[in-house]
Amino acid sequence: MSDSSQTFADQVDYVSGRTRLFGIVGHPIEQVRSPEMFTAEFRRRALDAILVPMHVLPDDFDALLPQLLRLSNLDGLIFTIPYKLRARVLTDQLGGQARIVGAINALGRRAGGWRGDIFDGIGCVEAFRRRGIALAGRRALLLGAGGAGSAIAVALASEQPASLRLYDVDATRAQALAATITRAFPGLAVSAGPPQLDDIDILLNATPAGMLDDARLPIAIDALSPAMTVFDAIVKPETTPLLALAERDGCTTVRGREMMRGQISRIVDFFMAEG
Amino acid sequence: MSDSSQTFADQVDYVSGRTRLFGIVGHPIEQVRSPEMFTAEFRRRALDAILVPMHVLPDDFDALLPQLLRLSNLDGLIFTIPYKLRARVLTDQLGGQARIVGAINALGRRAGGWRGDIFDGIGCVEAFRRRGIALAGRRALLLGAGGAGSAIAVALASEQPASLRLYDVDATRAQALAATITRAFPGLAVSAGPPQLDDIDILLNATPAGMLDDARLPIAIDALSPAMTVFDAIVKPETTPLLALAERDGCTTVRGREMMRGQISRIVDFFMAEG
Repeated sequence: MSDSSQTFADQVDYVSGRTRLFGIVGHPIEQVRSPEMFTAEFRRRALDAILVPMHVLPDDFDALLPQLLRLSNLDGLIFTIPYKLRARVLTDQLGGQARIVGAINALGRRAGGWRGDIFDGIGCVEAFRRRGIALAGRRALLLGAGGAGSAIAVALASEQPASLRLYDVDATRAQALAATITRAFPGLAVSAGPPQLDDIDILLNATPAGMLDDARLPIAIDALSPAMTVFDAIVKPETTPLLALAERDGCTTVRGREMMRGQISRIVDFFMAEG
Repeated sequence: MSDSSQTFADQVDYVSGRTRLFGIVGHPIEQVRSPEMFTAEFRRRALDAILVPMHVLPDDFDALLPQLLRLSNLDGLIFTIPYKLRARVLTDQLGGQARIVGAINALGRRAGGWRGDIFDGIGCVEAFRRRGIALAGRRALLLGAGGAGSAIAVALASEQPASLRLYDVDATRAQALAATITRAFPGLAVSAGPPQLDDIDILLNATPAGMLDDARLPIAIDALSPAMTVFDAIVKPETTPLLALAERDGCTTVRGREMMRGQISRIVDFFMAEG
């Protein structure tokens, strides 16, 4: 990070006048984990950079954000609830995933202006890649067609699965997402409908069922094939009811925390990209 | 700072969603030392807070700053060159030193809005206090009537010295500052004129002479009385030509770094004050 021989007792070694600034913008902000996790990733890469929380109230967002982006040593922002849709207007260039999903969660400074993209789905795909689990040619069932689900669906579709089935308690929402994916990936076998597991290799949960003290499974199941890979986007608890069931039945499991690590790594790549 | 039992290898322990945010606003920004020093002071006081550099270009200042102050977890700003005069318009309340000097270098969030004050002089007085060197009843000669000099003159005048003499290569500037001090402290013996040392107990340098590789003394002298206390506001080098001469002649010396520490401590008190 810094030259420790230059460090006095009355100084910290993790921020200086040369530190590049990044932020996470949200409301509320106290619960976010990005500051400690992104900053750790910057340190691992020996970058003199820090990501700090930026609490923006909904009524302030439209006037505040364009000005915030004029801070000359601010190089990027993360957007969390409730700003992933609103942040899109701040972009000068839109990445491929964001164009399809219609929302962004990261903004990076480029020579030509601010580039925005969404990395929730990319983080999920990165978690599979790091574990050496193929997505190409596999049959996937995704539960949940909300914000996280949409991003995951787009990222999965980019990996050329054999098929992608979408389920949501709100059938209309699942159908709308299937239509979006079909438009963007015309050759892909996409469908929306009930959560049948018979012909599925990979089951992904992007619903909130099982989060924190919620003991529910996202769908009514009592057993899983050990050949199946089961992913859950939920970070807390680390072992959700769905993952507990999958482990009991001998499935391969991929956790929300792995997706978060994958996403952080890919967003830092994005922040540091040239152009 | 944080509960270390909760710290994972992929997290740092010095920033989180709950961290309160402070900034130093300037142009340029790379050379400032406030981020590492203020953040160390926050840590010493077990405050979950960080001070980061905020590089604002002069053309952006007027539109950006009012918006920046709307960040809900931003609790204070430091202003450095070239913004100490311009920052005054951001205040809802003005502290006593700032009212006389006409500039601020710190802004703190209060229930009633943003309070501004200037601490350069307060830091100098704090350095003397920490060393147990009285200012009350002493005869002081201050060299330099610019920004730092003005703030030091006001803070010194508040300490009831026997007399305060002001010297600047620009005689008009010294006279204007003397008039300001006289208005604010009607009973004090203030004068502006040549730098005579005969009847002086405390010599203070607030000119840039002797900074970095500048080998000049702020005034033409070749010896000092050992009874004299000599202060230099310059931080780099730690031992300026003036302080080297003072040490050779057996004077008590007070360094710019002590003023900086004193100022940081008093500004953090100000940041954390209620009301």
